Amino acid sequence: MRILDHIESPQDIKLLNEREKYQLCDELREQVIQTVLQNGGHLASNLGVVELTVALHTVFNCPQDKIIWDVGHQSYVHKLLTGRKARFASLRQQDGISGFPKFEESDCDCFNTGHSSTAISAALGLVHARDLQKQNHHVIAVLGDGALTGGMSYEALSDAGFHQSRLIVILNDNAMSISENVGGMNMYLGRLRTNPKYMRFKRHVKRTLEHVPFIGKTLAHGTEKLKNRIKFFVLPRVFFEELGFTYIGPLDGHDLVSMTEMLLHASKMDHPVFLHVLTQKGRGYRPAETNPEKYHGVAPHVIEQQKTDCAPAQPNNSALTGQVLMEMAQQDARVVAITAAMCAGTGLDAYAKTFPDRFFDVGIAEQHAVTMAAGMARGGLRPYFAVYSTFLQRAYDQLLHDVCLQNLPVTLCIDRAGLTGEDGDTHQGLFDLSMLLSMPRMHVFAPTTQQQMRQAFDASLQMEGPCAIRYPKGCLPACAEADACSIFQWPLPQLLPSYAILATGKTVSIAQPAAAQLNQKGVPTVCIPVACVKPMDVDALQRLAQSCSCILTVEEGMYNGGFGSSVAQWMQQHFPNCRVLNMAIADQFVEQGTIAQQWERVGLTVDVIVQQLMRAKEEKSGE
Amino acid sequence: MRILDHIESPQDIKLLNEREKYQLCDELREQVIQTVLQNGGHLASNLGVVELTVALHTVFNCPQDKIIWDVGHQSYVHKLLTGRKARFASLRQQDGISGFPKFEESDCDCFNTGHSSTAISAALGLVHARDLQKQNHHVIAVLGDGALTGGMSYEALSDAGFHQSRLIVILNDNAMSISENVGGMNMYLGRLRTNPKYMRFKRHVKRTLEHVPFIGKTLAHGTEKLKNRIKFFVLPRVFFEELGFTYIGPLDGHDLVSMTEMLLHASKMDHPVFLHVLTQKGRGYRPAETNPEKYHGVAPHVIEQQKTDCAPAQPNNSALTGQVLMEMAQQDARVVAITAAMCAGTGLDAYAKTFPDRFFDVGIAEQHAVTMAAGMARGGLRPYFAVYSTFLQRAYDQLLHDVCLQNLPVTLCIDRAGLTGEDGDTHQGLFDLSMLLSMPRMHVFAPTTQQQMRQAFDASLQMEGPCAIRYPKGCLPACAEADACSIFQWPLPQLLPSYAILATGKTVSIAQPAAAQLNQKGVPTVCIPVACVKPMDVDALQRLAQSCSCILTVEEGMYNGGFGSSVAQWMQQHFPNCRVLNMAIADQFVEQGTIAQQWERVGLTVDVIVQQLMRAKEEKSGE
Repeated sequence: MRILDHIESPQDIKLLNEREKYQLCDELREQVIQTVLQNGGHLASNLGVVELTVALHTVFNCPQDKIIWDVGHQSYVHKLLTGRKARFASLRQQDGISGFPKFEESDCDCFNTGHSSTAISAALGLVHARDLQKQNHHVIAVLGDGALTGGMSYEALSDAGFHQSRLIVILNDNAMSISENVGGMNMYLGRLRTNPKYMRFKRHVKRTLEHVPFIGKTLAHGTEKLKNRIKFFVLPRVFFEELGFTYIGPLDGHDLVSMTEMLLHASKMDHPVFLHVLTQKGRGYRPAETNPEKYHGVAPHVIEQQKTDCAPAQPNNSALTGQVLMEMAQQDARVVAITAAMCAGTGLDAYAKTFPDRFFDVGIAEQHAVTMAAGMARGGLRPYFAVYSTFLQRAYDQLLHDVCLQNLPVTLCIDRAGLTGEDGDTHQGLFDLSMLLSMPRMHVFAPTTQQQMRQAFDASLQMEGPCAIRYPKGCLPACAEADACSIFQWPLPQLLPSYAILATGKTVSIAQPAAAQLNQKGVPTVCIPVACVKPMDVDALQRLAQSCSCILTVEEGMYNGGFGSSVAQWMQQHFPNCRVLNMAIADQFVEQGTIAQQWERVGLTVDVIVQQLMRAKEEKSGE
Repeated sequence: MRILDHIESPQDIKLLNEREKYQLCDELREQVIQTVLQNGGHLASNLGVVELTVALHTVFNCPQDKIIWDVGHQSYVHKLLTGRKARFASLRQQDGISGFPKFEESDCDCFNTGHSSTAISAALGLVHARDLQKQNHHVIAVLGDGALTGGMSYEALSDAGFHQSRLIVILNDNAMSISENVGGMNMYLGRLRTNPKYMRFKRHVKRTLEHVPFIGKTLAHGTEKLKNRIKFFVLPRVFFEELGFTYIGPLDGHDLVSMTEMLLHASKMDHPVFLHVLTQKGRGYRPAETNPEKYHGVAPHVIEQQKTDCAPAQPNNSALTGQVLMEMAQQDARVVAITAAMCAGTGLDAYAKTFPDRFFDVGIAEQHAVTMAAGMARGGLRPYFAVYSTFLQRAYDQLLHDVCLQNLPVTLCIDRAGLTGEDGDTHQGLFDLSMLLSMPRMHVFAPTTQQQMRQAFDASLQMEGPCAIRYPKGCLPACAEADACSIFQWPLPQLLPSYAILATGKTVSIAQPAAAQLNQKGVPTVCIPVACVKPMDVDALQRLAQSCSCILTVEEGMYNGGFGSSVAQWMQQHFPNCRVLNMAIADQFVEQGTIAQQWERVGLTVDVIVQQLMRAKEEKSGE
């Protein structure tokens, strides 16, 4: 029987001896690898934090003590150790265990995360709450080094250092965030890591600790001397101390013994501590060790083969974006591409190799990416920022204030727009339409085919103002009617029936068959694929109003402030007799599942469209 | 005749000798003080950068060289020196000179700013554009030290340091941003400033430079030695070097000679340079020197006395918020208040003094503020974040992802919501409604009276989820009908006429008289003051739909995705025969002017309401 099978709560870990803990680490790795290869998920980062997690639960007591996992995709081991191993096989599946911390799952998850660089802020909030309520527990924020490219971490570090309250921040430094880490901070950490003084220091730590007979007062005394040594060797150059933290490190994150002891030491301090831990991403799984970016997020073996909306040999929307940007860059020297640590995910790998000087990976720093793009545009370039919809939320003010207000030709390539599946409620791409439609001067495209994607990119290059092109995960249909009309025009048929469906983006896939069914049922309906969401095609709206009694809009985004609300407002103002119904995601967050399950769950189905328009017809005749 | 009168372009500055430049500085101060006391605006920060600005224009050539002013409220002197002194008397007035950089005004303003911490990102964008296009100009970002509490600056510093492209970042360190600076970075800067080595260094700079006979190669040689000295004395501890910048400083920002020489030195480097300049906020105007926070933003002498919507002795909405929070904090130990460097502006001064342990000023760091508030709420507190509407835009993702997704009882006290006047298009509070209404679980109040403000605060404390209370600059009416209905209910009269105006927030002030006029004109209309924007009062909507043929919504926010669009969507879904018209800010940014001028300009007037409903009535009878 495995040791893991005996771990019902974190308390059980404390009873293990060193050998047993290392065996537990092996079992945890095996379990993580097995489940992730089956269900998909984050592999490399979780394999890197096995010993760190075991050490944390050896020293601290969950749920009294609060551990916050920045980003949170490295919390699998923590989940296995905190009462969720029985359900772990349901990882990332509908109604299953989330791939991110969820306090709804366990009181050992004290704060839900998903986006980068929030942990120190949340931790400081918990610290203030603890201190004001005269409680006594520990608060620990665990960061990947990618978290430090996000500026929010500095806002929080600076504030925490100022307050001098008891708090432990652990930097899990694996020398890469998702893709290769970039930026000055990483160069700095690299210098710390390769410092020969660090090597000497490591030997010294080892020797010092070997002479410590048991953990407790003696160690505390020993580590006081040790602390002075650390100070002498490394600290003078360490930024974190300047901000008000006591810096400890760098430590070998796979050495359970020294990590446990240092955590114990840190737990005794009465002010902010910064623990710098070096780990290897993908540790213990050879393919992930050699290629951690590839194994950062793993697609599920089974499901992947089952179902994809891509035709054979069709590039997915991300790959297509990369291709189009390559072609555009070849023809127009002003074109540059930007990513925020998502080079591969957004399809820019080949572009980055072909145009290294015109490719900019800013790290996890969407705010900076957008304002830098604004600067580039002011300088005469044509920047394309490829970004997942969910992460674009970080740059709301920069889009509005730096791009739109100055009416600059910055194009957003919004990948993973709409429902994205297993990553769950923190990673769906549902808010970009509401965000962008209220921004003056912004053009917004939601192409319904890959051909329209190309048209939208072409249009963006001709524009003098900001532009967003949103497209879903996977593949939009490759082929389109041989339709020469402009991307700005909505393709209305010559004769309009009484009912029209305005379908944006991928929703054509349900709107088209729904229209067919409705026609069979005697509700004359046309499906109009709408790529240009803003500005709206006013001529088309007029024609629709004059011919149709009811228009149904469908979009993969929020109900409030989306495309549908624009159409409804316009009609109410100009043609109040033309009814507008909106189908979109109601006022809710969408939990994990396959994309197909999610569409079903939020009501983006052929059936619902058919019902809505059938009922509209009945109400009309009942008048 | 003043020297300033001879300065037609920055080139003219280069012809002045040292004595003349100092005289110019005096004249600039005088001009700034005179105009700001008349028109209102930012006084202390502009008085601090007079010598720095003159030195910049001595060394660099605008518009070829690009100077970006972070935040931008310290650009008055720059404006006076770059062809705008003749129009300077129109500062911050309708159709006048903006209080912030505007490339629409002058090609010496290369990038528009308004919110903090954007300058380095924008500068790096301009640098990349320059280098890719093989141009050769300088790019200079000028930061106030408040800019460094905003995390975005670190994202950009890190990226710029990594790229090693030629770029000059100047930190104008006046030891305070708007209110007293907070956070670890400030402690760090403070330590640099008070370092005795710095004092010795200053004497050394002086001596070294005294021995430099003229500017040119000799100086370059001299400063090389100087640079080594600097390195020896200060740099080992300087974070900025670790990020890849060459650090120069701290320099006396009122010493024209040494600043000019150091800027010249910096301009010769081929990689990123960080110049640390110490200035005194309010320099040269005694009241501002002694109380720079008070003189950060100055209300115009004339206009202020002319017109205010506050009754005698009535607290303005900010002051009322502070009072209410005090009362709540006295009664409920869970209540805490947060500000992002806007303690006085948001009315929290007295609260901060009364409850220092339950008051948190995080500096200019709205992202951190919101997620920290989420952490506090998870820890059992009831955080109230008082923030200007325009700055809340920085925390979109944190609101959505950390507050709403976890359904945490964080309350936003959104000050300066709606049109705010002279600060211009970067500082209007028009987007919060669109932002927040698409966020699931968020409650949104737009009280129409100060009594409703109190009710909204009471309600927020009873809630288990997030809540926003938005109120305009100035005063909402103090008195209300002795109306005991809940803040969640819309106060409908017993008998509803055919036309209803749903007026949110301050718009009751135009909706009420418009309803009176309409009734006189034979259009039976009622004005309903709506405080609770989300959730909508569905019972009221039903009654309205059954009685009214047309409803007009009025709000001080964006047309797209605002309150009106929610009402329009709801009616279309449930009662398509009830028409909904929306009055809001159309798809545009709103430029400076008095608030009254702005309301007029965007069409928030009694007349427009009357016209809209008259026309709706005509259209109805014409059917």
